[in-house]
Amino acid sequence: MQSPKVERLKINYKTLEEFQKFHEYGLPELSMLEDLEANMVENDNNSPFYGIYQDGNLVARISLYRVDAKYDRYFEPAQDYYEIWKLEVLPQYRNQGLGTALVSYAKSLSLPVKTNARHRSDPFWLKMGFQPVRYNPERDRGESPYVWLPPGVKLRD
Amino acid sequence: MQSPKVERLKINYKTLEEFQKFHEYGLPELSMLEDLEANMVENDNNSPFYGIYQDGNLVARISLYRVDAKYDRYFEPAQDYYEIWKLEVLPQYRNQGLGTALVSYAKSLSLPVKTNARHRSDPFWLKMGFQPVRYNPERDRGESPYVWLPPGVKLRD
Repeated sequence: MQSPKVERLKINYKTLEEFQKFHEYGLPELSMLEDLEANMVENDNNSPFYGIYQDGNLVARISLYRVDAKYDRYFEPAQDYYEIWKLEVLPQYRNQGLGTALVSYAKSLSLPVKTNARHRSDPFWLKMGFQPVRYNPERDRGESPYVWLPPGVKLRD
Repeated sequence: MQSPKVERLKINYKTLEEFQKFHEYGLPELSMLEDLEANMVENDNNSPFYGIYQDGNLVARISLYRVDAKYDRYFEPAQDYYEIWKLEVLPQYRNQGLGTALVSYAKSLSLPVKTNARHRSDPFWLKMGFQPVRYNPERDRGESPYVWLPPGVKLRD
């Protein structure tokens, strides 16, 4: 089977229309719509969203935010890392490895990756090579952070 | 109808057993279990969790983290605020105002309150007197923050 192709999503009206099919639709998407309406962006390639298309339709997506090293409270040495949000595969496209392909893409960027494991998704993150951090209430504020470490990077104590 | 009683949850084995019924069960809960097993806490009252009991069972809960003013990037003037996580009402107890009671409790603490509106929950937060912020990708990293402002507090630009 061919590996699913992960594409960086362009910010345009078509993409925003596709986003409405996803459960996690919030301020980031509305903000993109405002920017488009104000003619501030068109086919902007700096979107934090990546996705997978099937037959011309967006069927899976992920947000990858690059967090600056100065905000890093997870890794040793402190460095830029990616934070995963809004990993979502439309219901009828699940169990085809699309979520795995999106997370693999994030890992291919050669920086540490952090996410918040929600809804008892721990087995998925473990399978993807992530590990839970040692929970720190001040830093993690109720999240369940899981991280993936590239070679040479350690968890901060 | 009597208003539901919101209680601060004690960290003990019974509370942790109750938590297993909730969907959002992750590192914070596992961390409490470890602390209990190491005899580090018993009936600790400093838990960030508040909840509502019916007939002796925990049926709704909320996490309220107090964030220090030095981390405040939302309010003017900068100040301590509460962040809401893990607001959850067990399915068979929904539509009885329990979520509203938990959020009202958070508002009663006289500090600003911030949350991340997930799963298209915007109508609920608007009904609770919250407002969306102006989305800032660097700060909000894919979240959909909604805030509640007590008198005299403004949103930071």
